[in-house]
Amino acid sequence: MEKTMEKIVALAKARGFVYPGSEIYGGLANTWDYGNLGVELKNNVKKAWWQKFVQESPYNVGVDCAILMNPQTWVASGHLGGFSDPLMDCKECHERFRADKLIEDFCEENGIAIEGSVDGWSQEEMKNFIEEHKVPCPTCGKHNFTDIRQFNLMFKTFQGVTEDAKNTVYLRPETAQGIFVNFKNVQRTSRKKIPFGIGQIGKSFRNEITPGNFTFRTREFEQMELEFFCEPGTDMEWFQYWRGFCRDWLLSLGIKEDEMRLRDHSPEELCFYSKGTTDIEFLFPFGWGELWGIADRTDYDLTQHANTSGEDMTYFDDEKKEKYIPYVIEPSLGADRVVLAFLCAAYDEEELEGGDMRTVLRFHPALAPVKIGVLPLSKKLNEGAEKIYAELSKKYNCEFDDRGNIGKRYRRQDEIGTPFCVTYDFDSETDGCVTVRFRDSMEQERVAIADLDAYFADKFTF
Amino acid sequence: MEKTMEKIVALAKARGFVYPGSEIYGGLANTWDYGNLGVELKNNVKKAWWQKFVQESPYNVGVDCAILMNPQTWVASGHLGGFSDPLMDCKECHERFRADKLIEDFCEENGIAIEGSVDGWSQEEMKNFIEEHKVPCPTCGKHNFTDIRQFNLMFKTFQGVTEDAKNTVYLRPETAQGIFVNFKNVQRTSRKKIPFGIGQIGKSFRNEITPGNFTFRTREFEQMELEFFCEPGTDMEWFQYWRGFCRDWLLSLGIKEDEMRLRDHSPEELCFYSKGTTDIEFLFPFGWGELWGIADRTDYDLTQHANTSGEDMTYFDDEKKEKYIPYVIEPSLGADRVVLAFLCAAYDEEELEGGDMRTVLRFHPALAPVKIGVLPLSKKLNEGAEKIYAELSKKYNCEFDDRGNIGKRYRRQDEIGTPFCVTYDFDSETDGCVTVRFRDSMEQERVAIADLDAYFADKFTF
Repeated sequence: MEKTMEKIVALAKARGFVYPGSEIYGGLANTWDYGNLGVELKNNVKKAWWQKFVQESPYNVGVDCAILMNPQTWVASGHLGGFSDPLMDCKECHERFRADKLIEDFCEENGIAIEGSVDGWSQEEMKNFIEEHKVPCPTCGKHNFTDIRQFNLMFKTFQGVTEDAKNTVYLRPETAQGIFVNFKNVQRTSRKKIPFGIGQIGKSFRNEITPGNFTFRTREFEQMELEFFCEPGTDMEWFQYWRGFCRDWLLSLGIKEDEMRLRDHSPEELCFYSKGTTDIEFLFPFGWGELWGIADRTDYDLTQHANTSGEDMTYFDDEKKEKYIPYVIEPSLGADRVVLAFLCAAYDEEELEGGDMRTVLRFHPALAPVKIGVLPLSKKLNEGAEKIYAELSKKYNCEFDDRGNIGKRYRRQDEIGTPFCVTYDFDSETDGCVTVRFRDSMEQERVAIADLDAYFADKFTF
Repeated sequence: MEKTMEKIVALAKARGFVYPGSEIYGGLANTWDYGNLGVELKNNVKKAWWQKFVQESPYNVGVDCAILMNPQTWVASGHLGGFSDPLMDCKECHERFRADKLIEDFCEENGIAIEGSVDGWSQEEMKNFIEEHKVPCPTCGKHNFTDIRQFNLMFKTFQGVTEDAKNTVYLRPETAQGIFVNFKNVQRTSRKKIPFGIGQIGKSFRNEITPGNFTFRTREFEQMELEFFCEPGTDMEWFQYWRGFCRDWLLSLGIKEDEMRLRDHSPEELCFYSKGTTDIEFLFPFGWGELWGIADRTDYDLTQHANTSGEDMTYFDDEKKEKYIPYVIEPSLGADRVVLAFLCAAYDEEELEGGDMRTVLRFHPALAPVKIGVLPLSKKLNEGAEKIYAELSKKYNCEFDDRGNIGKRYRRQDEIGTPFCVTYDFDSETDGCVTVRFRDSMEQERVAIADLDAYFADKFTF
């Protein structure tokens, strides 16, 4: 079976996972809307993250901070000064490029070896390289570029009546800073002692020049971030702990070992403040892509905020009778990316006995958007089936389907990844039982209606 | 007991419900961050809405659309042309005012009766009134205003590299339009027949001139909206249905009859396209405030989008063999507002035997941020209590607390609204039982540890 983005995008649109944003108006560059199934899948992914990273964790609590923050936040974090792409235009065809990408692509095509990542080069170095190698415009082939200029990736807006510098605010480019500025607030109100962490799920915005690959890289996206505060010196231990914890979370939800890799950053690739960074990557049909960045950020962020705000960001360790700025381990996961990874991982086509094909999304039951399909064998049986639907839908997102022959209905539930179907048939009226049919094995089992609640009780945990 | 905003805001900040946004930088005008308890409360409220309006509803499905939409959306919805406040400045003291509010306040103070709402007046009418009545500036008392100008309430930003009209996009001022533009997509992929509805929870942004009353009116806020599509002619029936459904939802989660009122809009107050609108208001300590607007919007929105986009927005009714643009009933609820309402409604102070006072948040158990406090009577008993915590936290958000005397710990759980405390004492080691203590009655009950799972199973439903 060939798993292509084309097939997955088509299924996503046809079955209500993801539609192009503002589609009736021709869309809006790379925005996407989650449909009736997509919203359930995404909510389940967010719930699964919150459950393991916040609810069940004896260490962590959550927050939900505003998207609009005081601009001083972005002075402290470095986003206002340094969060930018080096852009240049072709003077001939007016196409716009990221200088670093232009160089990387040129080197790859021409077999030129470069040390480290172009990302780290100065503007001057990039300019010189492009001049020396007479790098051509990939669109028109000519070599006539403007100077490189830095383009800040934060979305800017104006709060209040006038559109001036005083009223300029930014859409947050990451959820992390909402956690850092509230470090003392949360520590005080939760009475947590170090080590402890603060998790957050929410939207962030980056004015990417080249978004793409469906929902993988979008300008508006959702993050699930944990900032874990620990004593300096214990940080590498906790870095390993969370690195393993994140990996296990993906495995426990059905991502396979061979679809996933942990890529440790080399010393040259590391941010200047980071002691260690690992990317967890997933093998998408378009290649390996980063899902999760796990970084030891040392005391960089809290120190920056302490210096910029003048507020005390130290923690008093009352066992050691010592004050210090905690070190931070940050596992930062893209919600849209990991939803896409689960969708790609789940996608399967299977040849059935007799040669028919079925498409099936093999979601982990905890993630499946519809948990149980309730299917009356005939419309005459709707009343009994509706009672079961009403009961089960108190606990699970269920779908009631009484249209078409039962085989087609099973295929339809397979295609949206419903792990269980409950079929109410003519015998159900007298024997008080229904047939439970399994998505993966297609096997069936007879279960008493009175036992359904207990039957499903442990089926959706992970 | 006097229930004041001052007390509630202080408790919210002290206990981790709500902090001022970007506080270490002196805040950012009226933004707020939900803390470790606030995020749980808000998530529970959203979950409770989704459960009744989407999951359990045989009619409705959900979506999750992008905040950034194609600007044509706002042409169709009327937000680009008409979603504005009439502003004027005092030329003497440079204070800025909303002209309609200025007139309303002036009339109220001077006992001048006006017909309907000033909201509906033209700019000319407002200007004339202010001139004729020599309305003074409320700040400096002089009468010397600039002309009225219309200020659009949408937040504007730029997508892409240049800050020009071509790249201007807006932060959505409501979630509703994401539903309307996807009406055909969702109908197709969910295979729903009319009547059916589409629900959405998400952030919206309005550049309000005068935000205030804590989290009641903020520029960045979250909405829980349902757009319910029905056959023209059945709309008033469905309007009544959802009006009652919304009211019952609030009652079932603990809002009392006398804290709530349903205010039907008078004919003059109605939008020109609406056949009926009801506001559900809650009695906050600062007065009555709107939580929920329930409106019969007729076929206005879908017709506007059909006209602007040129796309077909009709529905084919295959029983009646008829094509029509459905009518829409819209119950639109402010998530932050209703969270604040639940917080205010829950707040209580009680005099105990012996004259001590306790503060207690009497949340419905489904909404309580911490469901169960797990308290070892002594630190020596932590091991046994931690096992209970680990087990219960798989299902519920729990808090483990081993600090201070047990009475103080109960008070602390009362103050954050925890409905149940499980106390593990020295007898627990031998009799395998714990004490369950109730927040409201303060009564206690002995329960076997092995039975706790079953004991709590039905305690948090609604």
